[in-house]
Amino acid sequence: MPINPDAAGSVGEPSEVSWTSKQSLLYALGVGAGVADPTGFELEFTTENSDGIAQRALPTMGVVLGGGRTPDFGSFNPVFLLHAEQEITCHREIPAEGTGTATGKVGDIYDKGKAALVYLETDVVGADGEPLWSTRSGLFLGGEGGWGGDRGPSNDWAAPDRDADHVVSYATRSDQALLYRLSGDRNPLHSDPTFAAAAGFDMPILHGLCTYGFTGRALLHAVCGSDPARFGSMGGRFKSPVMPGEVLDVHAWEVDDATVLFQTRVGDRVVFDAGVMTRLA
Amino acid sequence: MPINPDAAGSVGEPSEVSWTSKQSLLYALGVGAGVADPTGFELEFTTENSDGIAQRALPTMGVVLGGGRTPDFGSFNPVFLLHAEQEITCHREIPAEGTGTATGKVGDIYDKGKAALVYLETDVVGADGEPLWSTRSGLFLGGEGGWGGDRGPSNDWAAPDRDADHVVSYATRSDQALLYRLSGDRNPLHSDPTFAAAAGFDMPILHGLCTYGFTGRALLHAVCGSDPARFGSMGGRFKSPVMPGEVLDVHAWEVDDATVLFQTRVGDRVVFDAGVMTRLA
Repeated sequence: MPINPDAAGSVGEPSEVSWTSKQSLLYALGVGAGVADPTGFELEFTTENSDGIAQRALPTMGVVLGGGRTPDFGSFNPVFLLHAEQEITCHREIPAEGTGTATGKVGDIYDKGKAALVYLETDVVGADGEPLWSTRSGLFLGGEGGWGGDRGPSNDWAAPDRDADHVVSYATRSDQALLYRLSGDRNPLHSDPTFAAAAGFDMPILHGLCTYGFTGRALLHAVCGSDPARFGSMGGRFKSPVMPGEVLDVHAWEVDDATVLFQTRVGDRVVFDAGVMTRLA
Repeated sequence: MPINPDAAGSVGEPSEVSWTSKQSLLYALGVGAGVADPTGFELEFTTENSDGIAQRALPTMGVVLGGGRTPDFGSFNPVFLLHAEQEITCHREIPAEGTGTATGKVGDIYDKGKAALVYLETDVVGADGEPLWSTRSGLFLGGEGGWGGDRGPSNDWAAPDRDADHVVSYATRSDQALLYRLSGDRNPLHSDPTFAAAAGFDMPILHGLCTYGFTGRALLHAVCGSDPARFGSMGGRFKSPVMPGEVLDVHAWEVDDATVLFQTRVGDRVVFDAGVMTRLA
């Protein structure tokens, strides 16, 4: 059991992050912005010089800007690593270009018996010293549990017992991952058929964070009036791989003014589950 | 007549050019590489880490790397500038990443009566001092002719009197220009509906050089065995704007081992005309 549960709470060295207007454009295109239907060309996210339109960043972009150095929490077999959960909290709107300081932290570490669930967190503050965004990723590390530690809270999320208030359908493209990967994650699992076959897939699979970005874009338009300033937080669990070309249906239930529950499905298959978004008035 | 015909032949200061693997990937995606049909994911152009596949650049990328400083050839009204012709000659395969030195030159200047036709040329040599590629752009400058100069040669190109030996059809996408523009040309004519309307178009038009890149990719696969090392040169004339979402049909006639004539059409409309490609054995 080479994971070190005592690493929970340890904080890494701060590091600089910066992002350009072009990175924001590329990220937006990578998660499907700019396709004419159903939401128009989304010019505020896909261009920097359209008449009377200021460029803005999609709120979920924070999850790929990274930069927080993660403190050591022991070693594990990366073959059995699964990106299980993802959350972002936007403390304010992420600018289309900017700089900041990212601080990585090891969050809770839970003993799931046959696996460990490790949360890695990053807090980013802007050049003005004020918080910009925070991310939290849950990593499921197969083979690393069993030290008799806390199993962690169970998740009692359930979809409301009614049809969703909004369903946004976005088709991904057969070559979606080839574009999305230029935002940073070059893992050949998402592009190389040979590598994907060795991992047991019929074809390269879409990045989970690409599905996450499509989902965030759907929620932005459906329940935040397309205004990134209203996008407070968004989190949930990866449930099933998505193949490039599949159609994502984002089901959203408005619970109250601040809270929206959501689930992303491909047909009847849930691909991102237990989704909770908070939005600002 | 503020164009200076005597500028023909003047050579600019050399300048450095460099390009990254990522730029080559982005360019390839911008001209449609990676869409599964009909040519597969084109992994050598769209990825840098697929198993057993070395990354290569599409030969037409040279036309966007630019860098050659153009000597002064007088002034003109840019509103009446039309990119009329484009040619690239690859002296050898353009590497997926590299550096070089570009030297711009004013080529022939012709008096078309109500317009001037000015050729701008760039020669790029690699870090080893050997030629890499050369480009030649013909600019049609409305209102700048009439000084009694040479009209230049007439173009007697004609499509052979038979069906094309190859027709490659590539659909462009409604958002094609939003992706292509990240390779450098951010002119809002290609992205901003308001700007495009002011220029008289119903919607933002596709970059001519995007059509050119799609065409070069079609020829690469159809008549060069998908091998950039066999791509010698490719030139012709822009004939009609292309709207994003239109389907490009590249018609190619094999004239001899070295020479291929081609035309790119949208339905019956010729959009790139008088195409001549040379290929290596």
